[in-house]
Amino acid sequence: MVRKRINKKERQQKLTERLKEDPFLTDEELMQMFNVSIQTIRLDRLELGIPELRERIKSVAELTYSKVRTIGGTEIVGELVDINLGKSGISILETNENMAFKKTSLVRGHNIYAQAESLAIAVIDADVALTGVANVKYKIPVKAGEKLIAKAEVVRERGNKYFVHVFTYVGQNQVFRGKFILVSID
Amino acid sequence: MVRKRINKKERQQKLTERLKEDPFLTDEELMQMFNVSIQTIRLDRLELGIPELRERIKSVAELTYSKVRTIGGTEIVGELVDINLGKSGISILETNENMAFKKTSLVRGHNIYAQAESLAIAVIDADVALTGVANVKYKIPVKAGEKLIAKAEVVRERGNKYFVHVFTYVGQNQVFRGKFILVSID
Repeated sequence: MVRKRINKKERQQKLTERLKEDPFLTDEELMQMFNVSIQTIRLDRLELGIPELRERIKSVAELTYSKVRTIGGTEIVGELVDINLGKSGISILETNENMAFKKTSLVRGHNIYAQAESLAIAVIDADVALTGVANVKYKIPVKAGEKLIAKAEVVRERGNKYFVHVFTYVGQNQVFRGKFILVSID
Repeated sequence: MVRKRINKKERQQKLTERLKEDPFLTDEELMQMFNVSIQTIRLDRLELGIPELRERIKSVAELTYSKVRTIGGTEIVGELVDINLGKSGISILETNENMAFKKTSLVRGHNIYAQAESLAIAVIDADVALTGVANVKYKIPVKAGEKLIAKAEVVRERGNKYFVHVFTYVGQNQVFRGKFILVSID
């Protein structure tokens, strides 16, 4: 589907709106959305004073990290962009070639796992939590460069055990799901 | 149990024997075995021309890496010290504080997972293999500095699916087990 180009003013207005709805859209995604070159998107952002994705993620992440109890911010694999302690959380991991097999440029499973596991631990409302059991499924191979959005939810709590489900997406596609049982320790 | 010290000649002879049986004993383990200081062990190794653990692991690993088909040697988390392609493999990961939670100095689960998953992939006799499903259990927390020995075994093969079990030990204690279903891709 090729969309008709719109004029600059209209495009910049829509671009601002779309980024308000989803601040984690990549320049590539915006480029396709508006059917323009990546340079045009970069210039638009520059003129509108909208920082690049990495900076946008960071500024959201800084707010959320301060709420986490179980682990330090730098110990989370990916950037934590939303947290509702004891309930849910979202993190974003921008993958690159270093995380992938050289032969195929497919992201190695343990990187996807690491993002999910550290997010599962981060959402727990306790001082220390460790993974007890994990049951994970890789549904679609992830290419280096794709942006992983992991969403965690605490589904049950029983004594010092926490059942956390994590679903990881690339765009609208679910690429991974993990079911974790975490144990909090005094 | 405090063992009686033995004389230097006898100790060096026994030390050589023990390292022939298990080339991956740490200086700390040898120190306790012979009830001497770590300096004594280091001097013994120097006099006997036995390189340090890291070098011993490396020289064994170099031989084994060349047999792996699915992934590059540097893509394996830990050092691969034994491989029987399509059947089994062993890798060693020396943990450190960087792999652990700052708060507790306990090794983060995803590092233990990464060693197991990459070993499971390495033992597969195919050109490309990806993880489909993993079911893992963390049995005993691992302290930073402990040496993880992972042993993988291909238990079943069905079409392009491989069932691989990995058991990870610290000394004699099993700290982790993972059941992986891997998929080979053409």
